[in-house]
Amino acid sequence: MTWEAAMRTAIELAHNGPATGVNPRVGCVILDADGVTLAEGWHRGVGTAHAEVDALSKLPEGGARGATAVVTLEPCNHTGHTGPCSEALIAAGIGRVVYAASDPGHMSGGGAARLREAGVDVTGGVLVSEVEAFLDDWLTAARLGRPYITVKWASSLDGRIAALDGTSTWITGAAARQRVHEQREASDAIIVGTGTVLADDPSLTARGDAGELMARQPAPVVVGTRAIPKDAAVFRHPHPVIFEGTHDVHEVVRDLRARGFRRVYVEGGPTLASAFVAAGLVDEFAIYLAPTLLGGNRLALGDIGISTIGEQLKLRILSVDQLGSDLLIRAVPLRSEAAQRPGDVAQRPSDTAQQTEGD
Amino acid sequence: MTWEAAMRTAIELAHNGPATGVNPRVGCVILDADGVTLAEGWHRGVGTAHAEVDALSKLPEGGARGATAVVTLEPCNHTGHTGPCSEALIAAGIGRVVYAASDPGHMSGGGAARLREAGVDVTGGVLVSEVEAFLDDWLTAARLGRPYITVKWASSLDGRIAALDGTSTWITGAAARQRVHEQREASDAIIVGTGTVLADDPSLTARGDAGELMARQPAPVVVGTRAIPKDAAVFRHPHPVIFEGTHDVHEVVRDLRARGFRRVYVEGGPTLASAFVAAGLVDEFAIYLAPTLLGGNRLALGDIGISTIGEQLKLRILSVDQLGSDLLIRAVPLRSEAAQRPGDVAQRPSDTAQQTEGD
Ligand SMILES: NC(=O)c1ccc[n+]([C@@H]2O[C@H](COP(=O)([O-])OP(=O)(O)OC[C@H]3O[C@@H](n4cnc5c(N)ncnc54)[C@H](OP(=O)(O)O)[C@@H]3O)[C@@H](O)[C@H]2O)c1
Ligand SMILES: NC(=O)c1ccc[n+]([C@@H]2O[C@H](COP(=O)([O-])OP(=O)(O)OC[C@H]3O[C@@H](n4cnc5c(N)ncnc54)[C@H](OP(=O)(O)O)[C@@H]3O)[C@@H](O)[C@H]2O)c1
Repeated sequence: MTWEAAMRTAIELAHNGPATGVNPRVGCVILDADGVTLAEGWHRGVGTAHAEVDALSKLPEGGARGATAVVTLEPCNHTGHTGPCSEALIAAGIGRVVYAASDPGHMSGGGAARLREAGVDVTGGVLVSEVEAFLDDWLTAARLGRPYITVKWASSLDGRIAALDGTSTWITGAAARQRVHEQREASDAIIVGTGTVLADDPSLTARGDAGELMARQPAPVVVGTRAIPKDAAVFRHPHPVIFEGTHDVHEVVRDLRARGFRRVYVEGGPTLASAFVAAGLVDEFAIYLAPTLLGGNRLALGDIGISTIGEQLKLRILSVDQLGSDLLIRAVPLRSEAAQRPGDVAQRPSDTAQQTEGD
Repeated sequence: MTWEAAMRTAIELAHNGPATGVNPRVGCVILDADGVTLAEGWHRGVGTAHAEVDALSKLPEGGARGATAVVTLEPCNHTGHTGPCSEALIAAGIGRVVYAASDPGHMSGGGAARLREAGVDVTGGVLVSEVEAFLDDWLTAARLGRPYITVKWASSLDGRIAALDGTSTWITGAAARQRVHEQREASDAIIVGTGTVLADDPSLTARGDAGELMARQPAPVVVGTRAIPKDAAVFRHPHPVIFEGTHDVHEVVRDLRARGFRRVYVEGGPTLASAFVAAGLVDEFAIYLAPTLLGGNRLALGDIGISTIGEQLKLRILSVDQLGSDLLIRAVPLRSEAAQRPGDVAQRPSDTAQQTEGD
């Protein structure tokens, strides 16, 4: 078997792992000198053996000596719940490591260098685009050191999310609302403030046209200190509600990261959305604009800590879509352009990489 | 000469008249039974002879008897500064009238019916699209019974026109600002409130990329009761400043109509724009959205008289253009969709026609 063929098998193996969680899905194939498969392994999630160690465990003592390990992600160099894979491979006498994507984590990265230091032949970048596409969310979260955060709101063309009396059903039309459900389904968590729960009693589920639950459901997260009524719709969500009893959005994000969320969707209200913006914790804006005017004082954003025009939060528009008679504007902060977005992983270097803590 | 050929000549003659003002530009050709031109005429503006009367005046007593008058607009049936053209044509013994566009004015209209009643052969609709395109602004204003009113603002994606401290230079980029100058040039007047003059000291001229004055300059109009500094930039405008010392926008519009303005451009600020919106006096919105967020309390619109979602002012989006990194959203109120917009004159029936008073 060629390295590429073995890498394709490793990718297949990686698919066996869990799609969410702090750790990436990784697969590994060990080949002898003639390219014959000696063992296969994959990672089953936090606290379990990494793919390389899983594969090695299937070989007798000394069985990997001089063999080639083909692995989807650069072997880690970090002691977490398990020891570093680089050391396990060296100890097993592996002669060559072939991997696809580099590990962007500050703590877990560096495995390739450690292996070379120990005299192992190392080749990276084999089928790298396939693997980066596959690990998209995890790589983004690893580079950011936290989940990728999208803030969404739906407003009139004059920036209002409700009329003076608080009524807002419906500002946007059916097509826009359906897109919101798709964006929810693609997220690990939906985050709202207590104000939104108390005002709107949202169910925070991802639903289809007919109101049916979609296959994948984001975890519902409520931020704030006030109590929520026992009969709130959010308690009927398929996942238990995560309460974040704080106003510190950094603390919220740390907790969501520790839970292994890679992509979260902040659905407001204005107080919570403004806090995320002011904290610089927004990677993408999903702004739904309805062709209507409302006037009044119910705004999509309140104080975001900007007092003069030089401090404005400049964005770059990714796309403008017409959904029914509404517009969806997707935009990213210019200041974090260097950070990578899901789907863009292969195109840009990262300068915000941080440690990956899971393991 | 055929009727069509004569109508083309009449359109040429109409071009000699003034492009602004309460009255339309009209041309007229009088043909004998063999299609030979007997006389030509055109309208030179309020208080002067209408095109038909101008042409008749060039013929000796009885010289028009049995002749055909080819005229770009349905002859008026109204006594203003001059008598009704229908009566002048009847008195001159004209045998046939061929016209292009109908007169939508409640008071001036009805000329064709009056002529038929008097036994004159009447044919309308000859080269009607050419003439309607040519009379675009005038027809729209005649149908609305007032100038066509565009309200423009430039805001961040969260609906702010300035930062907390009032600074706003620049929210939008060069391409958007240039489009604003083009929209100014296409207008008869630019309208602002005293608040904008006092805060920004705008020159209210239409300028090219290099800051040079464009060929056509809109009249500057300032609405409000406060005095403007003697050295305000607006006093260096090529046209004298029109002061409207009132808060009643209906009164402002009546005055602008009496001045013969057909297309006016309201450039703010928020107090004046909100007053136009609340009064239902907006035919089109030109909303420039910059990819930026500002937060704070300086909004494009304030109170527009809407208190609950059922009262929202629904719009229909005409176009979304990318100008540099900004967006221009052009939209019209749904409730006035029946009223016609410039450029759309030929497509829709009018249900808001009112009298045309000039003459
Ligand atoms: N059109 C839309 O897109 C949209 C979306 C969502 C909501 N809405 C509307 O928004 C309105 C609710 O607005 P809201 O601002 O009250 O909602 P909110 O942002 O959901 O909730 C505000 C609450 O969040 C908590 N909170 C979390 N982080 C905070 C921080 N950093 N600073 C201060 N408070 C923080 C506080 O709760 P505690 O006081 O409990 O500590 C605060 O009272 C409703 O009318 C709803 O309809 C519209
Ligand atoms: N980004 C943009 O597109 C844009 C455009 C223009 C202005 N601006 C900003 O807007 C700010 C000025 O705001 P503003 O609201 O004071 O400006 P404004 O609307 O130009 O002026 C307000 C004044 O207009 C008069 N007025 C006319 N009709 C009125 C009515 N129906 N009700 C009440 N007042 C009426 C009043 O003048 P009197 O008190 O004299 O009677 C009032 O004080 C400036 O910071 C400027 O930079 C931004």
